[in-house]
Amino acid sequence: MSTIKELGEREIIKLFLKYFAFSTLNLKHLNDDVALFNLFKGKMVVLKCDMLVSSTDVPPGMSFKQIGRKAIVSTVSDFAAKGVKPLALLVSVGLPRNMLKTELAQLAAGLASGAKEYNVKIIGGDTNESKELVIDCVGYGLCNKKNLILREGAKPGDILASTGEFGAVSAGLKIALNGFKVSKSLRKKLLKSVYMPKAHLKEGLALAKIKAATASIDSSDGLAWSLFELSKMSKVGFIIKNLPIAKEALIFAKLNGLNAVELALYGGEEFNLVLTIERGKWRKAVEAVEKAGGKLHFLGEAIKKKKITLSLNGLKEDVKPLGWEHLKA
Amino acid sequence: MSTIKELGEREIIKLFLKYFAFSTLNLKHLNDDVALFNLFKGKMVVLKCDMLVSSTDVPPGMSFKQIGRKAIVSTVSDFAAKGVKPLALLVSVGLPRNMLKTELAQLAAGLASGAKEYNVKIIGGDTNESKELVIDCVGYGLCNKKNLILREGAKPGDILASTGEFGAVSAGLKIALNGFKVSKSLRKKLLKSVYMPKAHLKEGLALAKIKAATASIDSSDGLAWSLFELSKMSKVGFIIKNLPIAKEALIFAKLNGLNAVELALYGGEEFNLVLTIERGKWRKAVEAVEKAGGKLHFLGEAIKKKKITLSLNGLKEDVKPLGWEHLKA
Repeated sequence: MSTIKELGEREIIKLFLKYFAFSTLNLKHLNDDVALFNLFKGKMVVLKCDMLVSSTDVPPGMSFKQIGRKAIVSTVSDFAAKGVKPLALLVSVGLPRNMLKTELAQLAAGLASGAKEYNVKIIGGDTNESKELVIDCVGYGLCNKKNLILREGAKPGDILASTGEFGAVSAGLKIALNGFKVSKSLRKKLLKSVYMPKAHLKEGLALAKIKAATASIDSSDGLAWSLFELSKMSKVGFIIKNLPIAKEALIFAKLNGLNAVELALYGGEEFNLVLTIERGKWRKAVEAVEKAGGKLHFLGEAIKKKKITLSLNGLKEDVKPLGWEHLKA
Repeated sequence: MSTIKELGEREIIKLFLKYFAFSTLNLKHLNDDVALFNLFKGKMVVLKCDMLVSSTDVPPGMSFKQIGRKAIVSTVSDFAAKGVKPLALLVSVGLPRNMLKTELAQLAAGLASGAKEYNVKIIGGDTNESKELVIDCVGYGLCNKKNLILREGAKPGDILASTGEFGAVSAGLKIALNGFKVSKSLRKKLLKSVYMPKAHLKEGLALAKIKAATASIDSSDGLAWSLFELSKMSKVGFIIKNLPIAKEALIFAKLNGLNAVELALYGGEEFNLVLTIERGKWRKAVEAVEKAGGKLHFLGEAIKKKKITLSLNGLKEDVKPLGWEHLKA
């Protein structure tokens, strides 16, 4: 009999959507980073749940404090991508009974520190026993429909941009999982990108405020996958003319004979925002993000043809629809 | 080193609250069935997450369809207890990779049927891989602060009531877990109460509408535990003068030499609402619940002394603070 590992996460979601179809308000929104519910007069309630599972989402060497913090970061990042401030969080946990009290305290401290970092309140949750550590972090926020940045909305000619460089998390994960050789200081920096990821909330809010972004997603499933999602939902393609790769990832790739571009494209668990910016607002967008303490990187542009191409140093190459996917055999 | 199973769920929650204290808006509400967030002008956003974990929350013999449905029922029941209509649900799932496709389809069908039963939309979720099946069901609703029924609010003299009889789930769980002897038809009825529990949403909404209930909780942790929670939050005690026990539970208890009163008091996973009703509104409350298709049972009354006493057939007995608790060794 066939098991779901043959399906993979995305086919599973399709199956769920088939069953929930009668129930959904707006199938289009079900494919976005957050769930939306009309409140009144153009105001919307924004909800998001993101589950962290110990055996699949926690790389070796991550502390309980970092695990708790990361559970918050993942959820906050989806709000960041939509340009919406998360106002409150709920945290459901499944805890293995042999967990140490000290580990529990560290986990709680991590959750609290993540909430503090993004200035959001934890207002509830649920506690359960489970075979492995599971944390479902639920976010709540409010937005004006007209300020919301969806995955759809990119137009040909828009500038493709990101709020961060790519590749460091891919490199860090290789170190954590496969023990690649690397200098001590490089190891420390790359592992930090894995253990202490940042949600680009200030950047997302700044861009929403000036209505500069036409579409947005976070790169938690990898840059390539994010671009395919934006492409599918916005019905555009992209040409990448500049790929901002983290310096540490470049050194790591060279040291280990790896392709840095592939590290940058096909990673995951990296929480940069990948956005399209209205061309006329590019300068304003760059300034707004800088003012918020971040940096907006030029990546390329949206095009009419639904194809994603890498065009660097005179070489053209198709980007493949690969990325992080749960339950994929 | 000490592990969390020595703590139990309630001590774990205390620990979390200690860490989240800086972050919480209202500690009092953190101890209620749902999380609350002020919207404006007396309107509140109501949020609730409830995690179902396969190894601890799913009794033997429960189908995947029933598991999916129950995940919805648990969350809806907490809304019912507060007199608030859930408007939307999010469902985060952790799925083991050896789960069959047919099982996944049944699970999805169960989630959808639960949502349909309570007329609530599933608007989002998250899909993950985990070692065992985990479902976190998140509910969203809106309410007027003045209609909300909290765990606090009961006054001495209020009538203690419930929207259902007790004991059937305790008996059914004993059959499912320990294989007690029982006739075929009785077995079927008692197991149904375990596999197909009902959230008393119509009852809760009807009582909120006429503002008859002064405090409320669902009996998912058992009747005794629910009473201790109401007692703690409302600063009252209770005398139980009438204990409505399901007929099937009475027969089961007699057949197996068990105490039916204990089955009724110290159960769990039973989703009756346990409420206090303003004495002057008792008749109106009974009628409103009947009109909604349910039944309001008289249990006794709230008293000034913070003690919970069973006073049946001339015998007085203290009720013990026992009930269902996760992670209790």
